[in-house]
Amino acid sequence: MHKWVVHEVLADAAYQYPLVEVVSGGHRYTYAQEYERVLRLANSLQKLGIAQGTVVGVMDVNSHRYLELKYALSMLGAVIHTINFRLPAEDLVYTIQHAKDEWLFLWAGFGDGAIRLAALFPQVVWLEDENGGDIPPEHALVFEKLVATGQVVEPPQASRVDETDPYSIFYTTGTTGRPKGMLYRHRDMLMASLQIAHHLAIHDTGARVDAESVVMPLIPFFHIHGWGVPFFAPYLGAKLVLPERANAKEQLELIRQEEVTWSNMVPTQLQMLLTEMSPQMEQSQHAPSGGDLGSEQGRHVLRVLTGGSPLSTGLAKRAAEAGVTYALIYGGSDQLGTSITTAAGLTGAQRLSRLATRMTPFPMVRVEVRDGDNHLVPWDGASLGEMWVQSPWLPTGYLHDPERSRGVYKDGWFRSGDLAVRYPDGSFYVADRVKDAVKSGGEWIATSVIEAVLSEVPGIQAAAVVAAPDERWGERPVAVVQADPRVEEATVRAHLQAAVTSGRLAKFWVPDRIEFVTALPITSAGKIHKVQLRQNLGLTSQGSIDTL
Amino acid sequence: MHKWVVHEVLADAAYQYPLVEVVSGGHRYTYAQEYERVLRLANSLQKLGIAQGTVVGVMDVNSHRYLELKYALSMLGAVIHTINFRLPAEDLVYTIQHAKDEWLFLWAGFGDGAIRLAALFPQVVWLEDENGGDIPPEHALVFEKLVATGQVVEPPQASRVDETDPYSIFYTTGTTGRPKGMLYRHRDMLMASLQIAHHLAIHDTGARVDAESVVMPLIPFFHIHGWGVPFFAPYLGAKLVLPERANAKEQLELIRQEEVTWSNMVPTQLQMLLTEMSPQMEQSQHAPSGGDLGSEQGRHVLRVLTGGSPLSTGLAKRAAEAGVTYALIYGGSDQLGTSITTAAGLTGAQRLSRLATRMTPFPMVRVEVRDGDNHLVPWDGASLGEMWVQSPWLPTGYLHDPERSRGVYKDGWFRSGDLAVRYPDGSFYVADRVKDAVKSGGEWIATSVIEAVLSEVPGIQAAAVVAAPDERWGERPVAVVQADPRVEEATVRAHLQAAVTSGRLAKFWVPDRIEFVTALPITSAGKIHKVQLRQNLGLTSQGSIDTL
Repeated sequence: MHKWVVHEVLADAAYQYPLVEVVSGGHRYTYAQEYERVLRLANSLQKLGIAQGTVVGVMDVNSHRYLELKYALSMLGAVIHTINFRLPAEDLVYTIQHAKDEWLFLWAGFGDGAIRLAALFPQVVWLEDENGGDIPPEHALVFEKLVATGQVVEPPQASRVDETDPYSIFYTTGTTGRPKGMLYRHRDMLMASLQIAHHLAIHDTGARVDAESVVMPLIPFFHIHGWGVPFFAPYLGAKLVLPERANAKEQLELIRQEEVTWSNMVPTQLQMLLTEMSPQMEQSQHAPSGGDLGSEQGRHVLRVLTGGSPLSTGLAKRAAEAGVTYALIYGGSDQLGTSITTAAGLTGAQRLSRLATRMTPFPMVRVEVRDGDNHLVPWDGASLGEMWVQSPWLPTGYLHDPERSRGVYKDGWFRSGDLAVRYPDGSFYVADRVKDAVKSGGEWIATSVIEAVLSEVPGIQAAAVVAAPDERWGERPVAVVQADPRVEEATVRAHLQAAVTSGRLAKFWVPDRIEFVTALPITSAGKIHKVQLRQNLGLTSQGSIDTL
Repeated sequence: MHKWVVHEVLADAAYQYPLVEVVSGGHRYTYAQEYERVLRLANSLQKLGIAQGTVVGVMDVNSHRYLELKYALSMLGAVIHTINFRLPAEDLVYTIQHAKDEWLFLWAGFGDGAIRLAALFPQVVWLEDENGGDIPPEHALVFEKLVATGQVVEPPQASRVDETDPYSIFYTTGTTGRPKGMLYRHRDMLMASLQIAHHLAIHDTGARVDAESVVMPLIPFFHIHGWGVPFFAPYLGAKLVLPERANAKEQLELIRQEEVTWSNMVPTQLQMLLTEMSPQMEQSQHAPSGGDLGSEQGRHVLRVLTGGSPLSTGLAKRAAEAGVTYALIYGGSDQLGTSITTAAGLTGAQRLSRLATRMTPFPMVRVEVRDGDNHLVPWDGASLGEMWVQSPWLPTGYLHDPERSRGVYKDGWFRSGDLAVRYPDGSFYVADRVKDAVKSGGEWIATSVIEAVLSEVPGIQAAAVVAAPDERWGERPVAVVQADPRVEEATVRAHLQAAVTSGRLAKFWVPDRIEFVTALPITSAGKIHKVQLRQNLGLTSQGSIDTL
């Protein structure tokens, strides 16, 4: 690699790790073969007129096709817009228009939705679905044919792409207003992605990744390129397993068949995977476990990097029992990844707890926790403030949106909108979104802490705490729980009271109301949709939820 | 860290790891205190007139003073020339003149040599030696006073230093002709240094370094900044122990007192350290050893990154027995570090052997092994060729020396002058310097392989094989051994014959002559001085030996 440009990573992998595999659907290619396919694809794309600066929208599940487009478009100096297909249709079309996509690459497996989208835009290439999805219209441009007909030679443009050239556009999934566009340059996207791997290798976490890992990204590629996996897996020389549209059962099969050792996913996905694993888990609990569960020395099924929402105590325990070790990552579309939980030298329950909560910033990243007067809060593990972040890959603002950038990107810092406390050792805990937090009598109440306590009650599957307007206190917390019908309010109240007694909750943090629902509303990012929830409960809201 | 400039690394460490220590001589500072000292120093240096582009020569042992100068000069955009004090006086003065040093910072502990040097150059600052060395002349500028009187504020220039600004000059220690100057930019020096830490964390080596390591560099700072340790230790947040002029016995005391877990050194230093450790070693061999020696799970005394010359089988074994695990690094002043030995998943003897021989290039680095016709040799583990290297931090040539750069730096590649073989998995083994190899009947003979076999003979302390002119074959190998008086030539010949029988040596590789000496000549880099040796034996030579 001469320069921090994306396609040089794959060129290096093809050269240094030519026999390491990429597995995707029914396909199995080596990095050397992937590189050849990417060269062919790039040359065919060039013939279509895709050139430096052309914006190309891609809508696909995590597949080798998507991987190849990430690298082929890089070679041409084109800009890849990774379309979030979980957005509402109107927002989805908005992002395509706002990013000024000139070409769309659509997976046929999306069926009617993709066909309707194709009708709106003139230049479309179909990504075939060999697994029995809808067949693209006749005479349409199809991906595999582009690969088959391209020349195996590096396009001349490839060596002219510069580190500071734009590489990718994607959108934050706000719940109020339109999605906000992010534009990252080659070196931003690469450095931030590689720092995830470096951080996991340098620190004592539950999600160590290295050259011997077998990596399967379950975070969709439209979420910050699956948190960087398609870049750092070839960089490490690690085998890459792409799950396409595998459900939890199929994911588990892939883990077993391909001997996957590392994955990333949001807590919701982890919960589904653990549920799928549970018959196996019960079996293995009768067998000797071979060590301290959850420690690096313990029996290992899988290492998981998770994030996007807090890991509840209950889920963390279930993961540990299943031999799944973990770490949490903190970041977002608008700042990329910046911190990962670490637990230097710790074991047992203390380790589990740290890995679910205590963030250490990447080397090169600075985090500040500031109070309302823009002063740093004391590093006491208790004072809440808003997190500001600085890193080498931070953009200067949202794409084509100076107005909403103002006050958010400021003097080289990014105002995260997240509430956090800082510990004496420099680590921090992200308690809440500022807009999700409850301000009662002038004091912040971190709803995630109450949610964590609630999630420990047997029979409660999920819990959310939101603000209700209150005449006397300004706001008061309301708990909404998704639970078995047999869970009674008295049991929940008793558990909250115990948490007050043991000092985990301040007395005034105890929710005034507890609502029982059959299902909590979920955002496209798999998080609880608190804005929706407040609307459902008839509470006003201006909240916005961002995804990592 | 906004940018890849050296001083931002320490600023980050002061911020993220404020309480982690730097130990040097009798001093003990935290990274926060080090940063404050550096700010003070930088402001005082600025008052002296040191500014962007000023070349400053530093001659010191590995100390906190040297560390502080590396960072303070970076803040001013000045260029640090790390003077190799082991060069012959004439070469040393040549490097100061060639680099155009405007200021000299000289450690008083060097005594008369430093005073003579100071007399030749007008602008000198004395680095005091608190441990009883010579006292600087009266009225001289002294380092600690500069630190004491400087302001604690970042000099304005600090934020204007750019990634591509020059940062450091140092010299290769050639044995023919004058030393060759190297100039590296901030991002070159930083990226190459951090990739050492990343590579050691990502791969399965015997010298893993991470945030919990306690690091003591024994490679002098004038050798490629001690192989990057003063940059990657604060980056990791690792405790840093600077040995000043500690001898092997004192180094061992530091290892015990400060709980050092990681160090770097050339094999000669390792040998001395192991000799110092041996009484302890014998003791511990009677105690339960706690695991497979030399494996990552085994009893650990120290992890060592070594290089600069091959690790003999005998020394590798002694290290393993003492609980010292290791990896070798390959590189040089003229290319920086590029590869480290790895042993993915291996244990026992196979692991020891791999870690002494099999190099894996860093991510981002490419290595090619080319034959005389500039074609790649087959990846068969047998065909010898010359190594060419490409990396993001490669310079375009030697400093002020286009003539000697020609043919060495070419089309973005560096011609290393080293002979290597490449294995099917992409790893390689560096067999010899091209100029040290013997060409017999048109075929290369890798002298290091013969030396490794010789080193296994009990009583042989060191061995060198050099070329003797031969009328029939062009050249023939001559072995020179430093051995106990009781070692007989017949024993050595029998051992060589056994190596031929077992297939380790080709028959024509067996040296024609074996010479016994009491001491082999050593270069300033601690390697066997083969040019000197050939002169001693009355053999002509044009050889040149480079250091890592």
